[in-house]
Amino acid sequence: MDLASWRDGEFAIKDMAVRGAPLIGATAAWSLYLATREAAEKKAGHDFLQDVASALIATRPTAVNLTWAVKRIVQSIATIDDPEQRVTVARQEAETICSEDIDISRRIGEHGVALIEKISSQKSGAPVNILTHCNAGWLATVDWGTATAPIYVAQERGIPVHVWVDETRPRNQGSQLTAWEFSEQGVPHSVIVDSAGGHLMQTGQVDLLITGTDRTTRGGDVANKIGTYLKALAAHDNGIPFYVALPSTTIDWDIHTGVGVIPIEERDPDEVIFVQGHDGDTMRTVRTITEASPVRNFAFDVTPSRLVTGLITERGICAATEDGLTQLFPERA
Amino acid sequence: MDLASWRDGEFAIKDMAVRGAPLIGATAAWSLYLATREAAEKKAGHDFLQDVASALIATRPTAVNLTWAVKRIVQSIATIDDPEQRVTVARQEAETICSEDIDISRRIGEHGVALIEKISSQKSGAPVNILTHCNAGWLATVDWGTATAPIYVAQERGIPVHVWVDETRPRNQGSQLTAWEFSEQGVPHSVIVDSAGGHLMQTGQVDLLITGTDRTTRGGDVANKIGTYLKALAAHDNGIPFYVALPSTTIDWDIHTGVGVIPIEERDPDEVIFVQGHDGDTMRTVRTITEASPVRNFAFDVTPSRLVTGLITERGICAATEDGLTQLFPERA
Repeated sequence: MDLASWRDGEFAIKDMAVRGAPLIGATAAWSLYLATREAAEKKAGHDFLQDVASALIATRPTAVNLTWAVKRIVQSIATIDDPEQRVTVARQEAETICSEDIDISRRIGEHGVALIEKISSQKSGAPVNILTHCNAGWLATVDWGTATAPIYVAQERGIPVHVWVDETRPRNQGSQLTAWEFSEQGVPHSVIVDSAGGHLMQTGQVDLLITGTDRTTRGGDVANKIGTYLKALAAHDNGIPFYVALPSTTIDWDIHTGVGVIPIEERDPDEVIFVQGHDGDTMRTVRTITEASPVRNFAFDVTPSRLVTGLITERGICAATEDGLTQLFPERA
Repeated sequence: MDLASWRDGEFAIKDMAVRGAPLIGATAAWSLYLATREAAEKKAGHDFLQDVASALIATRPTAVNLTWAVKRIVQSIATIDDPEQRVTVARQEAETICSEDIDISRRIGEHGVALIEKISSQKSGAPVNILTHCNAGWLATVDWGTATAPIYVAQERGIPVHVWVDETRPRNQGSQLTAWEFSEQGVPHSVIVDSAGGHLMQTGQVDLLITGTDRTTRGGDVANKIGTYLKALAAHDNGIPFYVALPSTTIDWDIHTGVGVIPIEERDPDEVIFVQGHDGDTMRTVRTITEASPVRNFAFDVTPSRLVTGLITERGICAATEDGLTQLFPERA
């Protein structure tokens, strides 16, 4: 899919042609760069760019680094009145956001792999069983991914792993994106329905949970794909560590508590009702719920920090608390 | 679907043309009756009937009242050597199992409705929000259902309810069976993905959980459709009552603890991989996961009794403990 205008970028984010907090941020940055080109062509000024920025921010209410990326581009060109100069600077800034994102993911992987390495050292060669929800892989970032980065680094280092991949209804990002990433990369994995994780944890078949996040509060609460909270409860009930991998750009330093505060996007019920798949070589969409039944589609939930063992960031691993976060990010203390 | 031989009955149970603990029991009873007819025709004796009984019991390892129903028929004819007499007695016994089941469900409904009535009295006319998982409705029993019976009785009495219906992957018994039952009966409801319940409970949108069960231990542990444990954890975390509705025939008095003891059926991965639905007027099946990814399909999980607020039985409501159960069923003390 080619994004030739900021409207294409807006559509790609809204329609989830791109998804995953870091990739949404990168796409929004490039969309705003495209808007500077349009502004130069039609001699529009800062007002136009501000309108575009607002429209882009409105596409997905939960993802905090969408706002972060848009504001970063807006700030980089805020004092530049020459339209061509704005184009050049916005482009440079978008490129920087992308290369920084790759660097951040790689660092998350290098910090997180220590957790896998430690468990592996107690398993005498048996694979470390990791459970993940949704897709926080390289399809959600510019490269490496966030939750998957420690797994890819473990693979690089020859540490045996096996990943339980949650299907992740309604959009099946687990069974369709994460599973595809892992089969492309040769990472051993098994797809399971979202309901299966509790049983696996109860019966000793999971050593570690790692997910991504769309927004983390200053207090360590984690908004992520609907269902993450249920997995965190099961991990806690069975004494299994639950880590959340995140670039610090997804931290919302302005709020302490997430439950009831972070807006939870309610999306189109059609995402639940219709399921897409292959019928031989043909891609088809089937209706799985009759028109007689109303359907509600909540996209995220908030996992309270008390259920999060730790946060894996580009600067290291910390407790999911304000203290833990501000020790790693003293500039936010 | 007509079941004309015990083999048809065996297939219907194994292939889940019938499902739900009470209905599996009733079907097994009628299958054994069909076997007595076959025995009469081909002059086969008790050995043949014992083989059929074993084959029927082997169809679904988790459901305890499958075994119960089969043994009940076997016992009723154990001392009868006249083949025609066996046919008559087996038929009577199967009919009794069915009429008893209707009576049991109705009683469960009448006991359980008290819980809904009490919550309703504090909601000044607003509907009582109930969450249920899988299908424990009249499609799972002979009539009324188990988890749904209190809801149907509430409706009869004009108590306003709204039911959150879990989709229940992989076989979608919630979105396809429970939702259909409720739309047929005019019960207000909304279908949600299995991952959504935690968010709804966290945000005050659920007053009560009621599910069925495939097997309950003497100590009050509950084996039910995969994912029940996760909902129970969320109910517990948010102080929301979680009740399990059950005919006492699904109680396994021989075991105290369920986790790691009750065999958890692992079913065909195709149930997860393929999704059936409507494409216009045509029923189609689509593949949602590529062949490159292994898939595992665990059908049940066990919810420890500490997470169960109470059990709704045909004799009343009790704590999910051995004491609670044996107070209602002193003959098992």
